[in-house]
Amino acid sequence: MRILGVDPGLTRCGLGTIDSYGARQVSLVDVRVARSPAELAPHKRLLMIADELDVVLDQFKPDVVAIERVFAKDNVRSVTGVAQVVGIVMLAAARADLPVELHTPPEVKAAVSGNGRAEKQQVQIMVQRILRLQERPKPADAADALAIAITQAWRGGQQSLIAEPDRTQHGGAGMLPRSTGYDLTPAQKMWAGAERMSRRHGAVAPTETSEQ
Amino acid sequence: MRILGVDPGLTRCGLGTIDSYGARQVSLVDVRVARSPAELAPHKRLLMIADELDVVLDQFKPDVVAIERVFAKDNVRSVTGVAQVVGIVMLAAARADLPVELHTPPEVKAAVSGNGRAEKQQVQIMVQRILRLQERPKPADAADALAIAITQAWRGGQQSLIAEPDRTQHGGAGMLPRSTGYDLTPAQKMWAGAERMSRRHGAVAPTETSEQ
Repeated sequence: MRILGVDPGLTRCGLGTIDSYGARQVSLVDVRVARSPAELAPHKRLLMIADELDVVLDQFKPDVVAIERVFAKDNVRSVTGVAQVVGIVMLAAARADLPVELHTPPEVKAAVSGNGRAEKQQVQIMVQRILRLQERPKPADAADALAIAITQAWRGGQQSLIAEPDRTQHGGAGMLPRSTGYDLTPAQKMWAGAERMSRRHGAVAPTETSEQ
Repeated sequence: MRILGVDPGLTRCGLGTIDSYGARQVSLVDVRVARSPAELAPHKRLLMIADELDVVLDQFKPDVVAIERVFAKDNVRSVTGVAQVVGIVMLAAARADLPVELHTPPEVKAAVSGNGRAEKQQVQIMVQRILRLQERPKPADAADALAIAITQAWRGGQQSLIAEPDRTQHGGAGMLPRSTGYDLTPAQKMWAGAERMSRRHGAVAPTETSEQ
């Protein structure tokens, strides 16, 4: 199973490709950061990111694309740009007929370091160890992209097989569409629960990508 | 000048194409709504919208794409989905080498009705009158897409010619990139001022698309 992990961003978009062999065995295939200058018009920036993404998809032919789920936090500007990048990454995956999985930052941190509130540096160190790299992957966007790919390898493997309810919907005559969208891993269910809790208590909730 | 106006959305994405002859003369070329079912995985929904958009771009070959600028408001979920659609629309425009313009809802309302706080129905009636249509364009997404295209025709015509600073940046040897991104029309400058004011006073500010 070859996995492309994406840390979405307009200025820097991390693209990390790994191979997963099961039993928590993973190895580095490629890591790079697609960049676009802030002076460029937004649509041209998206094109630069999309072109680099296409190079990676063509060259390494991943089986699944895992993307960091965007959080609202306080910077709405930033979230909008990131969501636009998530949109073009999802579209590229759909055009390549690949399943797409989303992982929240706490899920990724927990998966690679065992701690959902790990510091950025801890994540970088763990990614280096897990992939047996000579040095820490830099910039942070590169390390994050690999961490997302590792999370997908360790948590999302089974999930990705059931992540496309629509595949049966399309071909199957008389099949009812599933109303729940795609399934959640146990970790994602836990996170969704935490999310609902935090919303109830007025904290900032993560954004969703499945609604209009 | 042929203009494609886009009212972005995952469930319904309005796509309105008009011709502009100057002197506020416009005529309808095509209007349709790209749709995707909420049951589908998000990346498949984006693909459905993108495919319909490609049909419109191929068939009607617009000279410019005008998109409604997304607002934050209270529904972050919705904004994320809309921003993803804006991302794929911008990317399609960039791939077709077309300039992209954004117009805020108050700009669009003011352009077609003379009132920045006009009701949806007023906008629909004015779009019908301006384009001399037999009936009101429905659903609202179709009317909104046409209203955005009309706004572009009336306000953005000159702007679109200077909206691509990067075109000279790419080919030109030794040319300095412009640091301001693309230029604003007087109406957009006014809106940007109002936006800054409202931010200062703690109101909800429109989202931006040019930042990471």
